[in-house]
Amino acid sequence: MTGLKGKAVVAQSGGPTAVINASACGVIQTALRRRDVFTGVYGALNGILGVLQEELYDLGAEDPAQIDRLKRSPSSALGSCRHKLKDLKSSRRDYERILEVFKAHDVRYFFYIGGNDSMDTAAKLGRLAAEVDYEMIAIGVPKTIDNDLAYTDHSPGFGSVAKFNAASVMEAGRDTEALYTHDTTTVHEVMGRNAGWIAASCGLARRSDQEAPHIILLPEVPFIRERFVEKVRDCLAKYRCCFVVCGEGSKTPDGKYLGEAGGAFAKDAFGHTQLGGACDAVRAIIETDVGVKSRTNRAGTAQRAAMHFASRTDAEEAYLVGQKAVEAAMRGIGGKMVTIERTSDQPYRITTGLADLEKVANAERPLPKEYISEDGFAVTEAFRRYASPLVQGEAEIEIGADGLPVYARLARRLIGGKTGPYAVS
Amino acid sequence: MTGLKGKAVVAQSGGPTAVINASACGVIQTALRRRDVFTGVYGALNGILGVLQEELYDLGAEDPAQIDRLKRSPSSALGSCRHKLKDLKSSRRDYERILEVFKAHDVRYFFYIGGNDSMDTAAKLGRLAAEVDYEMIAIGVPKTIDNDLAYTDHSPGFGSVAKFNAASVMEAGRDTEALYTHDTTTVHEVMGRNAGWIAASCGLARRSDQEAPHIILLPEVPFIRERFVEKVRDCLAKYRCCFVVCGEGSKTPDGKYLGEAGGAFAKDAFGHTQLGGACDAVRAIIETDVGVKSRTNRAGTAQRAAMHFASRTDAEEAYLVGQKAVEAAMRGIGGKMVTIERTSDQPYRITTGLADLEKVANAERPLPKEYISEDGFAVTEAFRRYASPLVQGEAEIEIGADGLPVYARLARRLIGGKTGPYAVS
Repeated sequence: MTGLKGKAVVAQSGGPTAVINASACGVIQTALRRRDVFTGVYGALNGILGVLQEELYDLGAEDPAQIDRLKRSPSSALGSCRHKLKDLKSSRRDYERILEVFKAHDVRYFFYIGGNDSMDTAAKLGRLAAEVDYEMIAIGVPKTIDNDLAYTDHSPGFGSVAKFNAASVMEAGRDTEALYTHDTTTVHEVMGRNAGWIAASCGLARRSDQEAPHIILLPEVPFIRERFVEKVRDCLAKYRCCFVVCGEGSKTPDGKYLGEAGGAFAKDAFGHTQLGGACDAVRAIIETDVGVKSRTNRAGTAQRAAMHFASRTDAEEAYLVGQKAVEAAMRGIGGKMVTIERTSDQPYRITTGLADLEKVANAERPLPKEYISEDGFAVTEAFRRYASPLVQGEAEIEIGADGLPVYARLARRLIGGKTGPYAVS
Repeated sequence: MTGLKGKAVVAQSGGPTAVINASACGVIQTALRRRDVFTGVYGALNGILGVLQEELYDLGAEDPAQIDRLKRSPSSALGSCRHKLKDLKSSRRDYERILEVFKAHDVRYFFYIGGNDSMDTAAKLGRLAAEVDYEMIAIGVPKTIDNDLAYTDHSPGFGSVAKFNAASVMEAGRDTEALYTHDTTTVHEVMGRNAGWIAASCGLARRSDQEAPHIILLPEVPFIRERFVEKVRDCLAKYRCCFVVCGEGSKTPDGKYLGEAGGAFAKDAFGHTQLGGACDAVRAIIETDVGVKSRTNRAGTAQRAAMHFASRTDAEEAYLVGQKAVEAAMRGIGGKMVTIERTSDQPYRITTGLADLEKVANAERPLPKEYISEDGFAVTEAFRRYASPLVQGEAEIEIGADGLPVYARLARRLIGGKTGPYAVS
């Protein structure tokens, strides 16, 4: 306990996940129990934009049942954004504005749930506050389906997208298998712009060689057309069908995304440029070079919000890191992000730790080499040992009388503004 | 009881579903209990192709646990095909070949699980058998995610794809809502080439006006660009985001699929032709005419195989129609398809009936007008009353130690051939 009393602001940033609300719930419920420290717990509407525009609402005034339901609700119920603040020099006006709003409401704690960019914003905000002698604690809560945050064993959000995608690949793989006399190949695109963690996780679906996915395209492994085509032919000969998982961030050897480079590939096939995603480019290659029909699947945003088959492990850890962020803040710890440290694979055990926000902000974590098979088209046993515990258990959801999930909805009634309007740069 | 003894062949045809294996299980388990009637129960590898090529296997020799697991396994475990036999005149050789194989193995019962085309094949086969005085019973078991089979209240497979897609739309809709400051619109494409039942079912996700889907594009309602654009603008003004569900079979007023016509639309936007699906064409229109960024989701084959969130009602009915087919066959009834007749909406009650295969084969059932809202962009309360009972309950699945579903796999050891090779026409 530091004696620092004041309001807390909780914000969510970047792409939603199945469990980012569970993290928010962990922060909110833990903070609301400590009114002696937190004189109010506010939500920022749409991440840092809500702070800049002074669009705040009182989470203590929300229905506690809806707050609790956040544990079982996907997407970012507080509202999210992709607004990136630059460095303290060029975006100084914005950082000062944030402090202006915080001071006006006596906000002394800032909990930012997000990825690298959010950690960067939180770090810089903390630095400026120290510079101008405004006592406040900024702390980060990790969130990303991409699992590319460094200094943490994994990030909440990844286990759930991994579980849903692996199950989908298993199911769509059975579909391809059953209809191989008609459509022999399927290209199934999954998210992951910069790292192949999500694509790799689909490899969990493959319990035996004959099962999907037969080929995984990872951003970490340059896509060489000839090698890929040979591998597809090989799969068709062996299994009579071929199921390809394609990470959206897969690139050509000269660093172009397949989705963008697709034009060049597709031109060969159809004489005009391709606009779709990576899966469309890969399909064009299969149809041209191998000469078999191919289908494409791309769940898009539905994959990262797929709470209906989220990982219980992931949902519980997401709550935990939110709770730990509040506990750390109460001990006076700022400038840090809560991390997950694995202490044992089997049985799976974790503890939480803390990492410097600045370090986290400036690092990325691609899929390590030891998780990628020699030919680059599959994952290793080491990856399975890493990823398998993260998809364990099914997160609880509520089902309504209409047979569909019931997810939280917050009232988000904005509190009165104490500052003037602000034009976000 | 008719006294007709002999072997039974079970076959699956067309696109897989989450519950077509449950129907197969209903047929197999019911038939295997009556060895006094069925001297053997064979599976045909890949539908009618397996019969033509005499690729049959003994379902009685399979592990009973795997047979039982079919109830909880998606896709077509017997193997499927899209091989369509023409009329008795032009495809006579094929029909005679089927009878040749059936005679060689003393097959007296044929259970064909599929849609219109399969019902057509079964009907014609039955007719030829009567013509040549080969005593046999051909009976149909309905299956289609498209729900466009006539003479039945609904078809097994629909309830599950409806449940999964509605949940996905609910989840992806929350995602769009949370990130409206960055991506305001999402186009979510679902299956249904000829009928809008699946697209309509996504409307179940919309419990209040502000929730997704804000617009549904149905094949039954001609797509008029200007009206659509106006509706998108309207949604953006009201809800600050717009979530569009697009049935893959949506068409322009002159009857072109949006996916194909997409070229024309996309050319306006980017100067070249569009290759993707309907969602890509719709996205191009939104980005050009409305001027906002749009995302696209298209789960593809993963939606129809999504056993991990299938409807329990659907799975149970799928089993039931399989069982009823065997019971009808034992009463000597051939040339029919088992139907589902709804006797009450609330509480939901059904019974099964029988319809002539020929009638079913030659009919289609588009979404009726009373299920479509006046402006054509939504569904009515009448549709909700119809569809809601079909998505009730979650089908049971098994989860392995790796946290992922465990689905059936049959050994499918082919029995020896008794006829010569055959070249399928």
